[in-house]
Amino acid sequence: MLSAKWMEELVEKIGEPYVQTDVDDRHIYRYNSYPGEYLPQTIVFVTNTEAVSQVLKIANKYKVPVTPRGQGTGLSGGDLPVHGGILLDMSQWPASIEVFPDDLVARVSPGTMTSTIHAEVEKYGLMYPPDPSSSGISTIGGNLAENAGGPRGLKYGVTKDYVLGLEVVTPEGEVMQTGGRTIKNVTGLNVTNLIVGSEGILGVITRATLKLIPKPLSTQTVMAAFNAMETAGQAISKTLTSGILPGKMEFIDQACAQAVEDYEPNGLLPTDKEAIIIIELDGHPKAVREEANDVSQIMRELGATTISIPETKEEASRIWEARRMVSPAITKMKPSKASEDATVPRSQIPAMMARLADIREKYNLTLVVFGHAGDGNLHPNILCDDTDKEEREMVERAIEEIFRTAIELGGTLSGEHGIGTMKSPFIEDELGSLAVSMMKRLKKSWDPNNIMNPGKVFPDKGQRLILSRQIEK
Amino acid sequence: MLSAKWMEELVEKIGEPYVQTDVDDRHIYRYNSYPGEYLPQTIVFVTNTEAVSQVLKIANKYKVPVTPRGQGTGLSGGDLPVHGGILLDMSQWPASIEVFPDDLVARVSPGTMTSTIHAEVEKYGLMYPPDPSSSGISTIGGNLAENAGGPRGLKYGVTKDYVLGLEVVTPEGEVMQTGGRTIKNVTGLNVTNLIVGSEGILGVITRATLKLIPKPLSTQTVMAAFNAMETAGQAISKTLTSGILPGKMEFIDQACAQAVEDYEPNGLLPTDKEAIIIIELDGHPKAVREEANDVSQIMRELGATTISIPETKEEASRIWEARRMVSPAITKMKPSKASEDATVPRSQIPAMMARLADIREKYNLTLVVFGHAGDGNLHPNILCDDTDKEEREMVERAIEEIFRTAIELGGTLSGEHGIGTMKSPFIEDELGSLAVSMMKRLKKSWDPNNIMNPGKVFPDKGQRLILSRQIEK
Repeated sequence: MLSAKWMEELVEKIGEPYVQTDVDDRHIYRYNSYPGEYLPQTIVFVTNTEAVSQVLKIANKYKVPVTPRGQGTGLSGGDLPVHGGILLDMSQWPASIEVFPDDLVARVSPGTMTSTIHAEVEKYGLMYPPDPSSSGISTIGGNLAENAGGPRGLKYGVTKDYVLGLEVVTPEGEVMQTGGRTIKNVTGLNVTNLIVGSEGILGVITRATLKLIPKPLSTQTVMAAFNAMETAGQAISKTLTSGILPGKMEFIDQACAQAVEDYEPNGLLPTDKEAIIIIELDGHPKAVREEANDVSQIMRELGATTISIPETKEEASRIWEARRMVSPAITKMKPSKASEDATVPRSQIPAMMARLADIREKYNLTLVVFGHAGDGNLHPNILCDDTDKEEREMVERAIEEIFRTAIELGGTLSGEHGIGTMKSPFIEDELGSLAVSMMKRLKKSWDPNNIMNPGKVFPDKGQRLILSRQIEK
Repeated sequence: MLSAKWMEELVEKIGEPYVQTDVDDRHIYRYNSYPGEYLPQTIVFVTNTEAVSQVLKIANKYKVPVTPRGQGTGLSGGDLPVHGGILLDMSQWPASIEVFPDDLVARVSPGTMTSTIHAEVEKYGLMYPPDPSSSGISTIGGNLAENAGGPRGLKYGVTKDYVLGLEVVTPEGEVMQTGGRTIKNVTGLNVTNLIVGSEGILGVITRATLKLIPKPLSTQTVMAAFNAMETAGQAISKTLTSGILPGKMEFIDQACAQAVEDYEPNGLLPTDKEAIIIIELDGHPKAVREEANDVSQIMRELGATTISIPETKEEASRIWEARRMVSPAITKMKPSKASEDATVPRSQIPAMMARLADIREKYNLTLVVFGHAGDGNLHPNILCDDTDKEEREMVERAIEEIFRTAIELGGTLSGEHGIGTMKSPFIEDELGSLAVSMMKRLKKSWDPNNIMNPGKVFPDKGQRLILSRQIEK
């Protein structure tokens, strides 16, 4: 099977068992978080920095594309080998986490599950705030590459806000250290934050130093339901300008609530209301208790018809579990799901909700919405049957319209999923051609042979949205 | 006086009154935050984006260096025209701030004083957290270029953590928009955070969209004094692993306290203790009251001999005013001052303090220390008479040793002042040659003619520390 010189060199340097070229092995990588039509020529399993360096040196020498991949949970196709070449499988990389409680930092390997980081640092009374919904199945390497978000973005920011330093293998295979382990650090250009969220096009992250914070002493959940979407939007704004900054502020529409109730009936989420807001306040016990009352007051004044303040931790957990059930529950509604993360300025949430309702009607689609209301990061999801060619075309047109609407309302194509291969045809619409060309210059200066994850972020010539790339089954 | 073709073109495009080549006018720019030996060939006053674009297009065409300058309060020489050319004076740029309270963002011009931003957003119950000590005399343009910090860095992060989007004129004179106005945004490479803190070498920032947060409802100050530096260091660590994250946590040594008392006697700061810690807790009124008690308890257990908890806002303000007096007060101790911002991981604060004491003794210098203890960002200051050649040499050697010590302890050359021209000879010692060369590639890809602020961040060939560049009078 081995044919090319570069494959031979890979086997020689990395060792036979770590290099797979068998067609069956390769086929599994077509079925990622959503199916692609892309087959890598070789899969290389790497478990240490030195191996990554060797692979990249060979790839750079022979100009072979390299696509890094962790647990394959990405939602924009960042880990699909769209130009073939080497699939750099990092899923076998051993988890490793060292916590330095006095410094409030942790050093982790890319193969460490994000939920493991949460649990480990909690033992020291600390918190690593970024909490993508995938934290139990995704590793920090992917979170770093995609600059993952999550519900806590509202109060605590996203992955990039918690990275102090990185070890990165450059596209030419050199091992570079960036940043450090101090919170304040202005020595040289901020390449740490350039690499976080760069979706693998600037190199491979092989270690990270993360910033931690003291874990808030207590939390309190508040759930409010509204008869009208608009008043829910107003309640969100009013809360955020009242001096209260909740740890989380999530939104679920009626269809999502119904889907959860159908999927796992428990009567927790009201199914007869247009909008549900679930809030988690965190901090000092006395403060959260009072803030919970203040938030309830605001919700009530702005028209909430039901307000629940769970009294026990267990009761609160059940509400949040129901929130987490939204994504699997709606998946049951139709054979396929297209999940978006269009994000708008907070004040535009009601307008975005209205436009999504229009799009739903115009294309006659099952379009449901949930997401991180507090930071304007909505997740419109379209459920469909992608074997139905006509429906498929409607979905494609609806998604394009969602993208354009988000941009029109002053928002962005992607709040936390990344551009990957899926949204790259639209990137110039948001950023303009100058900004995109300046980004390309940066990329080229580090990766003159364009081997690192080509076909991502920037569109290939003539590329347009193809639904099969982005429907999740 | 006009001689070169590029000067003629400048006058033609920008207009005579905005272009100064008179020697007297130019001489004032030699006396910046510290004196340099650098004279620009021309000073151009710019007050809008279009003018910056025109200047940069001409400069790029003729390969003339451009050094942007705001209020000239920088502490690492970032605004010194070390290669001559054009001094781009932005000090006349009109202040402008638009607050969008529902979105929790503000859009500002580079000429807006940072303290004006603080005051304006407060009217909406909001806060822009970064608070460099210069906020009353420096503009946001310089804060952005240098990624300014301040006492609130501990809890709230630094300037880069509050920038959502920028308007930037590229080295080739094109006007680029970066980022947006949503908290979550992963569309394309993060050039916003690459430009913030890039010290003017990647372009000129002409507008910024800043992220705001709800202003904490209340604050409470606690001051504790310790007989020994070491126990003060332990008290800092203990507080930060107790679940409490103060808004500010400042440190003042005995010499600084004495200097303040000599400068403006008010008996506020104890002058007979090795170390004073001043803490500000912020948040919900009930929470801060309890946290103040908890912090006092920790301080007492770890050996604090005096603890003051001011009962009124006025009393608290006076303590913070005394803290702000440190810098002007120590300036009176000797004719000149060299101010450093070496930063170490928090756990290394006691070690750094011990090493600074050794350096003080070894070189027989007046070396005093204050700074942002909570985030490891110390400000060792050496007071000296720079007309005394021998002392001057000792200061040079001491500063070099401070830099090397910070790096040795896992810290960084600069926490918040920037590298500028002053620390560039040491940048490779911290970052290594690979990281520096990768940074230079980024710079070159955007600025092939090296016109934007040359001689900064990266050392000129053979450059070494020269004290005259960094002594403040």
